[in-house]
Amino acid sequence: MSENGGRTPGADAQQPASGIRYVRATVEYDGTDYCGFQWQADQPTVQGELERALAKVTQEDIRITAAGRTDAGVHARGQVIAFHTGWRHPLSELERALNAVLAEDVVVWELQPAEEEFHPRFSARSREYRYTIFNQPRRSPLARRFAYHWPHALDVEAMRQAAHKLIGTHDFATFGQPPQGENTVRQVLRAEFTCEGPFIHFDIEANAFLQRMVRSIVGTLLQVGSGKLSSADFEEILRAADRSLAGPTAPPHGLCLMRVNYE
Amino acid sequence: MSENGGRTPGADAQQPASGIRYVRATVEYDGTDYCGFQWQADQPTVQGELERALAKVTQEDIRITAAGRTDAGVHARGQVIAFHTGWRHPLSELERALNAVLAEDVVVWELQPAEEEFHPRFSARSREYRYTIFNQPRRSPLARRFAYHWPHALDVEAMRQAAHKLIGTHDFATFGQPPQGENTVRQVLRAEFTCEGPFIHFDIEANAFLQRMVRSIVGTLLQVGSGKLSSADFEEILRAADRSLAGPTAPPHGLCLMRVNYE
Repeated sequence: MSENGGRTPGADAQQPASGIRYVRATVEYDGTDYCGFQWQADQPTVQGELERALAKVTQEDIRITAAGRTDAGVHARGQVIAFHTGWRHPLSELERALNAVLAEDVVVWELQPAEEEFHPRFSARSREYRYTIFNQPRRSPLARRFAYHWPHALDVEAMRQAAHKLIGTHDFATFGQPPQGENTVRQVLRAEFTCEGPFIHFDIEANAFLQRMVRSIVGTLLQVGSGKLSSADFEEILRAADRSLAGPTAPPHGLCLMRVNYE
Repeated sequence: MSENGGRTPGADAQQPASGIRYVRATVEYDGTDYCGFQWQADQPTVQGELERALAKVTQEDIRITAAGRTDAGVHARGQVIAFHTGWRHPLSELERALNAVLAEDVVVWELQPAEEEFHPRFSARSREYRYTIFNQPRRSPLARRFAYHWPHALDVEAMRQAAHKLIGTHDFATFGQPPQGENTVRQVLRAEFTCEGPFIHFDIEANAFLQRMVRSIVGTLLQVGSGKLSSADFEEILRAADRSLAGPTAPPHGLCLMRVNYE
């Protein structure tokens, strides 16, 4: 599928012409009410909402590119986008105007000029995701949008040991499919658990991720935490590079794209 | 207005008869989508949702009493309710059945038998509320349901000093109206600020609160934090016991009933 989901190319397909600026921005969103980041006809998407706001403010037909196409229900604290625009006023004014027009579950900030070589996805050196588990017998109305409720006891130390096996360059075919091409090798730089009261946070940073990779890893780590798999089993499953061996994919609402790192 | 909002009295108006148990429970809710706690005809309320679930599970027409009638949009982590029921099975089963039937933004827990003298409101020794401010120039989609966005700089130390004046027994007529009667004297046991990244939490505990008291105090403290009032001005406004002197009432979504304490 093309970058624009089959639509006619917009501003981002053009070469920068006189008066056209290339802009990058950081985006935070509550993904609960969106069918994912990527534009879809007749579905609410974060990309659609951003492009609607850009059109309203600039009167231009603008297509954005993004660092990661988060799934339906996944949140972001630090998604990165880029777009071309003929906007002639300061970028601080564009930021203010966009945030006045955007739905309350999306906000842009850190608008800044970007180099023409910059691409939110291809220029990224690494991505950081956080998956949050609410580990208490009863569910929590206050935490329900951003944490996966796991009512049973978890051995976090066992999960931590298993997660440590992820670090380094491996074939992660067990945990996801590549968004394009066949390469399932990724480099995980960090994979750690921290506990905060009833919340268990899993923070993972990698050069790039396969589709559903974090949620598939978390679902399998939950089997380790539940005593169904040992840390050695987890390592074997990773090494097997076999998608059918992964545990159930954890639900999207516990996941948040925290940050995208560039050179 | 009567306890039941004008409806015919239900189980809670009866004397305990053979087979009727008196039960208390703790309730957590996300108040965003409710027109407050107290039952209203044709409006979604937390009380209405709890009574709907109780009716569905027990097949009885049950009326609950609660520690505090939180306003529309206010949340609770530790609301306390009580009700009479002919339920014959263990209370753990009633808890499980209720939580399976309740909307996802309400949950009950800590169901336990209560003494007949117990009343969630009148037996309470003190209540604890937390008001959360998100203090950063940009708004936050992820924090928007539970924190009031204040984009301007705040002098938290000045707010802390002013809040200290609240402690003790005072006439709080400046900050609210009594739910019944004319007595506006309350005893504040604790009033403190803590900062957590961009979040500022205001925790206040009192024997009881006037209507809108916490939000009115917070709105006035924000004027102190903004340099519009000094800590001495704040004390004068408190001592004046004059409702017209309070700052604007802070919006409900930053407020949460954290806990109700009994002997």
